Amino acid sequence: MNPIITAFASSPDRGQGLARDMRVRWALEEVGQPYDVRLVSFTEMKQPAHLALHPFGQIPTYEEDGLALFETGAIILHIAEHHAGLLPGDANARARAVTWMFAALNTVEPPIVERETASYMERSEAWHEHRLPMMEERIRTRLGQLSAWLGGADWLDGVFSAGDLMMASVLLRLKASSDMLEEYPNLSAYVARGEARPAYRRAFAAQLEVFNASSPG
Amino acid sequence: MNPIITAFASSPDRGQGLARDMRVRWALEEVGQPYDVRLVSFTEMKQPAHLALHPFGQIPTYEEDGLALFETGAIILHIAEHHAGLLPGDANARARAVTWMFAALNTVEPPIVERETASYMERSEAWHEHRLPMMEERIRTRLGQLSAWLGGADWLDGVFSAGDLMMASVLLRLKASSDMLEEYPNLSAYVARGEARPAYRRAFAAQLEVFNASSPG
Repeated sequence: MNPIITAFASSPDRGQGLARDMRVRWALEEVGQPYDVRLVSFTEMKQPAHLALHPFGQIPTYEEDGLALFETGAIILHIAEHHAGLLPGDANARARAVTWMFAALNTVEPPIVERETASYMERSEAWHEHRLPMMEERIRTRLGQLSAWLGGADWLDGVFSAGDLMMASVLLRLKASSDMLEEYPNLSAYVARGEARPAYRRAFAAQLEVFNASSPG
Repeated sequence: MNPIITAFASSPDRGQGLARDMRVRWALEEVGQPYDVRLVSFTEMKQPAHLALHPFGQIPTYEEDGLALFETGAIILHIAEHHAGLLPGDANARARAVTWMFAALNTVEPPIVERETASYMERSEAWHEHRLPMMEERIRTRLGQLSAWLGGADWLDGVFSAGDLMMASVLLRLKASSDMLEEYPNLSAYVARGEARPAYRRAFAAQLEVFNASSPG
């Protein structure tokens, strides 16, 4: 039986591929694992059946044979540990790839999400225009450090890994709402390399299909 | 040779155990692995030698025999994978413990850090008192969900794991600067169970010793 992931029944980004199921779809496509998708509404996400799978009432979740996971980091690490293609064979290189997954989620994504959240929750507050440059400065600090690390390399630690999948996914979130990424040409090219991967494209098409199928007319 | 971690030469929290080396110390104590500590100054953290170990110029880092890691999530997962005591033996339970590590770092910690950052960066701004309740509401949403999940259990998924170590560490950060945690008695008790562990106490004493040794008179 295929693993089952959950995704938004009604895509808040209108199929731009920014919802977090996209990361998991991408990982599953990289390793060639077919999967099924169960769509959940915003109402369903906050109900007991979904909260039993995801205590924070979000998507995606991941289910297979008696195992239920949430958190894209954990889901993708689980997929990567059970299939070839997302983690290097060498133990040290593998630990470094996992490091980049955590760096994407705990160091690079939080200031990006903070700006995003403020942009829809605090947009009409008088202070928003003053805070925006402060938040962007924090993001630039991280981008500058990441750009310095990447230099002229294709990927963060040699070969493409789950660490790159996660970092590119996080940066795509920024790219969708800001021109900041373009200030770092090597990071822009890095993200474009991610988007050009056949697995990414298949995953993107699959989530877009959900949006197209659900949007009237 | 013992692994080497880095920690602040000058503890910003005056030995309260809130710096992130504490999490790694705790994990190393849980598994009984001795370690050495190299103290770094704020200046050293931004210099090439340290940036080669930690691209974002922070602590802690972790080094052993040709392997260098950063990000507490990755370091603790590495320790947990190489020693007994932090991850259950059953594969599914292990994946769930890893899920809680990611949940701590990517879902629960970011709103806590946002509030903390605003409290020292934006304290004197006129908007701070208006934003504070907004930020606290986001934290309460997460605490309420976590509290509902935990219920009357001792740990998040049966036995103590690296997921609990990380979640308790994140909640301790909140406890140090707010009374919010006390609104959720089961979460307060959960954190207290973490703090009562002998490994936690040894780790806490070790980081406090660094502060005491470095503080004049």
